[in-house]
Amino acid sequence: MSLVVQKYGGTSVGDPERIRNVARRVLETQKKGHQVVVVVSAMSGETNRLLDLATKVAQNPVGRESDVLVATGEQVTIALLSLAIQDMGGEAISFLAHQLHILTDSSFMKARIKSIDSTLIHQSLNQGKIAVVAGFQGIDPEGNITTLGRGGSDTSAVALAVALKADDCEIYTDVDGVYTTDPRICPEAKKLDKISYEEMLEMASLGSKVLQTRSVELAAKYKIPLWVKSSFNQEEGTVVTQEDKDMEKVVVAGITQDLNEAKISVRHLADQPGIAARLFQPIAENNINVDMIVQNVSEDGFTDITFTVPKLDLKKALEIVQRQKNQIGSGKVEADEKIAKISIVGVGMRSHAGVAGQMFKTLAAAGINIQMISTSEIKISVVIEQSLAKKAVQLLHQAFELGKE
Amino acid sequence: MSLVVQKYGGTSVGDPERIRNVARRVLETQKKGHQVVVVVSAMSGETNRLLDLATKVAQNPVGRESDVLVATGEQVTIALLSLAIQDMGGEAISFLAHQLHILTDSSFMKARIKSIDSTLIHQSLNQGKIAVVAGFQGIDPEGNITTLGRGGSDTSAVALAVALKADDCEIYTDVDGVYTTDPRICPEAKKLDKISYEEMLEMASLGSKVLQTRSVELAAKYKIPLWVKSSFNQEEGTVVTQEDKDMEKVVVAGITQDLNEAKISVRHLADQPGIAARLFQPIAENNINVDMIVQNVSEDGFTDITFTVPKLDLKKALEIVQRQKNQIGSGKVEADEKIAKISIVGVGMRSHAGVAGQMFKTLAAAGINIQMISTSEIKISVVIEQSLAKKAVQLLHQAFELGKE
Repeated sequence: MSLVVQKYGGTSVGDPERIRNVARRVLETQKKGHQVVVVVSAMSGETNRLLDLATKVAQNPVGRESDVLVATGEQVTIALLSLAIQDMGGEAISFLAHQLHILTDSSFMKARIKSIDSTLIHQSLNQGKIAVVAGFQGIDPEGNITTLGRGGSDTSAVALAVALKADDCEIYTDVDGVYTTDPRICPEAKKLDKISYEEMLEMASLGSKVLQTRSVELAAKYKIPLWVKSSFNQEEGTVVTQEDKDMEKVVVAGITQDLNEAKISVRHLADQPGIAARLFQPIAENNINVDMIVQNVSEDGFTDITFTVPKLDLKKALEIVQRQKNQIGSGKVEADEKIAKISIVGVGMRSHAGVAGQMFKTLAAAGINIQMISTSEIKISVVIEQSLAKKAVQLLHQAFELGKE
Repeated sequence: MSLVVQKYGGTSVGDPERIRNVARRVLETQKKGHQVVVVVSAMSGETNRLLDLATKVAQNPVGRESDVLVATGEQVTIALLSLAIQDMGGEAISFLAHQLHILTDSSFMKARIKSIDSTLIHQSLNQGKIAVVAGFQGIDPEGNITTLGRGGSDTSAVALAVALKADDCEIYTDVDGVYTTDPRICPEAKKLDKISYEEMLEMASLGSKVLQTRSVELAAKYKIPLWVKSSFNQEEGTVVTQEDKDMEKVVVAGITQDLNEAKISVRHLADQPGIAARLFQPIAENNINVDMIVQNVSEDGFTDITFTVPKLDLKKALEIVQRQKNQIGSGKVEADEKIAKISIVGVGMRSHAGVAGQMFKTLAAAGINIQMISTSEIKISVVIEQSLAKKAVQLLHQAFELGKE
């Protein structure tokens, strides 16, 4: 008998009828002879409804109590799904984080799972029950409720799969699997049968919202195959797994676009050691995540630095930079929100030369100006004007022949 | 420094603005030099919204998972209230049942509190924090979430007041206090300054919805004065407390009506020992609460039995009686849902004769026929036709001069 962890996202449990649909699927899996653990998110829209209430009672609703609030979303879903399974004649039992001792650190709203006690779940499974677990939440060592950040239920599912030594971990969502790019941008986008953990990690952190980055890291660390499937059909989906020879043959696995960053340029900085540190340290101290940084070659002892931050943090970042400006004696500070980061990802880049050249040539031929470039072993990202993003993705998808069988 | 437990019901926390209003009141109480523990219910309408979702996924959503579901209502409120208090510059910390070890038995949907660990609350209060506790919920010895039944937050508040050895327990609601009768039925209804535990118990169990019966029992057992006040103004309210000499001077403290019962009559029963047991035992076994029972004097070896059950259980009760009918050989079985139970309550009845007579005379003079009568030491209940209920309450209120200063 194999043990399967299935995770259903917010749209898959978005209303009572969909919850009953999930109940049916879960029962079918059990009937095939598997032990089933189901991890669920809040019903779609629920987390936003709760956060909206929070902003009506407090200007800045963060920290411990915000987590107490949003954790109710998943609690509602586990109860409803358990009731639905029972209604269909199955046996189900729901579990909250404190009941399973899903221990995390104390970083409210972005906690990380440290350990899970699997005793109760194994007990329930051995009694023939389906275990229905609230995703997204944990408790810290003091017993406070914590949450794992947006998309955290994916991580809950993988962490449970690890703790339970599950044979399979299946992430059910509203898309059929992982695509070469977003099909809404590029109709030629093709579903991938397989993708490596590393590629998926890049895709996830670059703005492909299929999986939470942390869940992929965890799956990679423990070598758990991660299936991404649709909860609305019976298609095979995509498996995220260890890199193999086949994957290396494909140069580019996927293309992502990220419209949620903004660019800040600081002009005419003295090109001296320590200047960059004095610019970026206070930004880091304010928990603002700087993504790309470009510093151009110094001329006459001065240089320009350009970097990107999440749009949501732009205002705060600008305030900090303006404050530092006087201390470090820089020139003008400029900001631009109308940018897009376009990235191509593929483990094949390791063994194939000329991928960057091909990317730049394709964009140049269409008159698309590249503002920033950043590369890693298996990805190349460029920043371009936002209005050209869709066109760029379509052209690159074509250039790297991702639509072909 | 005194310790006060304040409980705010669903309408008092019904929307974000009202939650901020409660935050302000709580902070004012703290500023006066008190330690404050706040117990809250779910926002009004929330429990029904959740139960409505439950009936959409399952035909009979009861038991453990139903409690997991509805317990989220109070969790949302404690988080929002804590955020609101923090937003106003105060310090607050929320607590769920499992964090305070509010231990109950395992009767889902109607659990009873056995013990509370007050350590964490005392710690928080000593740090200058306001403790915000989710009412209505507990955990059983296995760590399952339980709930205390409708109105259970009142009981949570009193149980906390007992565990914390609080100086005061204040129940804030949408009315100014306990009235001689429902002001919507009888505009002359007068607010009582004081009422005894016993009278309040009768009033509560007879359909006055101000307090949950169990909370009054608990307050009486530990002699905790219970204040009923409005969360929308600064009026004195009503205190539920031990009986004193003043109270005995008042013959009737209040009048209640209950429209939620139905009547079943079983005709022509053999007047033999054991017949009543064979009729009522299967009803009790099905957890149906029989309230009044009247058996008239036997003639020619046969008798009629009439009893009342909650309207919600009428269908089930009738099925049981029909089944028993053949076994015990009774005559016709009749049901009537169009009844009202009108009760007068007062500790003064103990020392005043003629109260029942006055009640019957008043109803008779208005041509209101009494179908059933039941009495206790401090109350008299009659069943009459439902359409005459309002008139009966108004006439009795006048007859016992309850509207007078």
